[in-house]
Amino acid sequence: MRRLNTADDGFEKAFARVVDQRRETADDVAQDVRGILGTVRMRGDAALAEYTARFDHHDLATPDDWRIEAGACEQAYAELDAELRDALDLAAARIRDYHTAQLPEDRDYTDDAGVRLGAKWTAVDAAGLYVPGGRAAYPSSLLMNAIPARVAGVERLVVVTPTPHGKINPLVLAAAHIAGVDELWRIGGAQAVGAVAYGTDRIARVDVVTGPGNAWVAEAKRQLYGVVGIDMVAGPSEILVVADGANDPDWIAADLLSQAEHDPTSQSILITDDAKFADQVEDCVDLQTSTLSTAKIARESWNANGVIIVVRDMAEAPALANRLAAEHVELAIDGPEAMFAHIRHAGSVFLGRNTPEAIGDYVAGPNHVLPTGRRARFASGLSVLDFMKRTSFISVSDEGLAAIGPAAVTLARAEGLPAHAKSVELRLK
Amino acid sequence: MRRLNTADDGFEKAFARVVDQRRETADDVAQDVRGILGTVRMRGDAALAEYTARFDHHDLATPDDWRIEAGACEQAYAELDAELRDALDLAAARIRDYHTAQLPEDRDYTDDAGVRLGAKWTAVDAAGLYVPGGRAAYPSSLLMNAIPARVAGVERLVVVTPTPHGKINPLVLAAAHIAGVDELWRIGGAQAVGAVAYGTDRIARVDVVTGPGNAWVAEAKRQLYGVVGIDMVAGPSEILVVADGANDPDWIAADLLSQAEHDPTSQSILITDDAKFADQVEDCVDLQTSTLSTAKIARESWNANGVIIVVRDMAEAPALANRLAAEHVELAIDGPEAMFAHIRHAGSVFLGRNTPEAIGDYVAGPNHVLPTGRRARFASGLSVLDFMKRTSFISVSDEGLAAIGPAAVTLARAEGLPAHAKSVELRLK
Repeated sequence: MRRLNTADDGFEKAFARVVDQRRETADDVAQDVRGILGTVRMRGDAALAEYTARFDHHDLATPDDWRIEAGACEQAYAELDAELRDALDLAAARIRDYHTAQLPEDRDYTDDAGVRLGAKWTAVDAAGLYVPGGRAAYPSSLLMNAIPARVAGVERLVVVTPTPHGKINPLVLAAAHIAGVDELWRIGGAQAVGAVAYGTDRIARVDVVTGPGNAWVAEAKRQLYGVVGIDMVAGPSEILVVADGANDPDWIAADLLSQAEHDPTSQSILITDDAKFADQVEDCVDLQTSTLSTAKIARESWNANGVIIVVRDMAEAPALANRLAAEHVELAIDGPEAMFAHIRHAGSVFLGRNTPEAIGDYVAGPNHVLPTGRRARFASGLSVLDFMKRTSFISVSDEGLAAIGPAAVTLARAEGLPAHAKSVELRLK
Repeated sequence: MRRLNTADDGFEKAFARVVDQRRETADDVAQDVRGILGTVRMRGDAALAEYTARFDHHDLATPDDWRIEAGACEQAYAELDAELRDALDLAAARIRDYHTAQLPEDRDYTDDAGVRLGAKWTAVDAAGLYVPGGRAAYPSSLLMNAIPARVAGVERLVVVTPTPHGKINPLVLAAAHIAGVDELWRIGGAQAVGAVAYGTDRIARVDVVTGPGNAWVAEAKRQLYGVVGIDMVAGPSEILVVADGANDPDWIAADLLSQAEHDPTSQSILITDDAKFADQVEDCVDLQTSTLSTAKIARESWNANGVIIVVRDMAEAPALANRLAAEHVELAIDGPEAMFAHIRHAGSVFLGRNTPEAIGDYVAGPNHVLPTGRRARFASGLSVLDFMKRTSFISVSDEGLAAIGPAAVTLARAEGLPAHAKSVELRLK
């Protein structure tokens, strides 16, 4: 953990190091992934079977080895502990509500020149959702990806997920049942992304691929960008907590640890104007860490990537927050709206002392798939728009053409495109 | 030009070939581009000067060699022929109006559980627009990229454009003046994209890069996706014209040629239910081509990539159009709305006999930067959204936390994330 103070001489340099720090995997996996994608494209299902045997130790032999049927998902849901089932149902309902309110409106209007203009939104035909196996096999993540796709109107929802040594996470199956997933394939890694992007004999291709994954999965999505649509390439999770001394240090420590426990590469940053409060939070982090089952990861993350910044005045916080452009930003202060008005770059903002980030991970409703690694400067969290596209349309009346056609002819000629000009001129006569 | 008929036995196979045809450059430029980007990142302005001397035969020595100042753009605008100036002004005003109406609305509401939720849209701080030199140095293209960025609220608008042998296109400068570009740098190619994405001593980095370019530029954007936001990677232009026999074949021929004249890799497709009309259009294309200054390109494109599909019934058209997912779709029929309702995948649709695609290239208002190469299945045309991002926000009251907090605790525990659970539990006490 590093501790900085905006009053120190070396602050700007030290803060710039925090901003520029690369926590993303440095492994050059690009070459590997290129090879895997090429092989899947060429050899299809046979390649999938080979990679899955090698990487996941799972044999794709019978149809049951390839796919998990809807019945198995329904059963996993039915067998859930009632409290857990209710929690998943509540999360799903709230995610559904928030994303339904997000649906874009079509436009259709005729302007003063008599030209009818508009835009029509439609869903993609099919979406592929990657769900990781192992440590990050989160049912909440499946809901956060699948429900927006469903709300957008996607007709075919395909999940790919590795089942290492054949093991399946029943929570993920239950979430697939709730979200109404259409197909669930037991494949993972770059090969799974390639399979749904290109299509194979067994698996029809999709139009968009979303969902978290390891470095291979992320690189596969990056390489296939353009072949399919993708959500943002995701990096390690991060939180910035802006908290004054009036907070309970134990609450703020828990918030910082809730990011740290995700992964050793996660980052938790506290900005406060109270040095004594900073000390207290530091102590609470140490104390709480020892009680966590995720202590090892949380400690590694906090030690390597944790930062406490003591500012002279909270008015310094928004500028620092905008440079960090963090995935999650908590404003644990009174009247957080005033500061929020100055926050330009953030994935999601949690207003007030009573809104821990974890509430957004599960049940608040907004998406928890958010831009990381300072990408909030230009990217947004996952939404129904990632599963939709807009078709603009134009209809020109005789009067409309008379009003704007001559200018089009002039510009086409100036750009040296005579057929463009002629297509308008013929209609002007 | 190929001619297909849906009544023929071999139609499905032949049509699938049209759909799957790759018209994009097969050159493997990825390695080159990787080298250029790495060099620009490491050596900055010195690398830019070397590449610009080598590829553009332009010496970046004095500040005037590097940048074109606002005064020069204003002068180019003032010196325009009045008709051309008025045409550019009309185009700019109409593009501005359409994109202003496109601005998204923020959301802020409190739901039944007492949880305040919302989303706030903000512009990126800085955008870089690539404007090609040579054949495709189109002022309309500059307007179509720069105006949405301005409307979105981008504060710093940077244009990069190569000036081969020092030559500058005054139309592009005039368009830069109209759009209010802040900086105009005389660099091009992958090196220019790298310069604005990474930043150099002279050029501050931007957050989003858009604009058309050759294969090197497109590949540079693809490789930098994630470092910056980008618009869709663009391929050759294409048009699909759906026209019945009641059209003037000369009009439809001009429409087909208005795509063909862009580039030998462009594609023009006609779908009609009238074989005799198809013959007439074919004749008109030949006749008109001979009169065009762009005849060589148009002929090459039409011969290599042109397609006429005769359908038994116009009801067959939408399904074919959706599989082609073309950049531009003209519906030159009576009552085009009925067919438009069945068009799911298209970049932009031109309704009725009186709406040539070229009107959309210049003055209609909607953006002419549209998804190509069947990407309309998942991508949209350029819009203000490409220069903005959405920050979701959450504020939970005591009652709200009591209502949804316990479910968050349950889910966090189920996912093995105890610090997540604790951050909520502490506040529930």
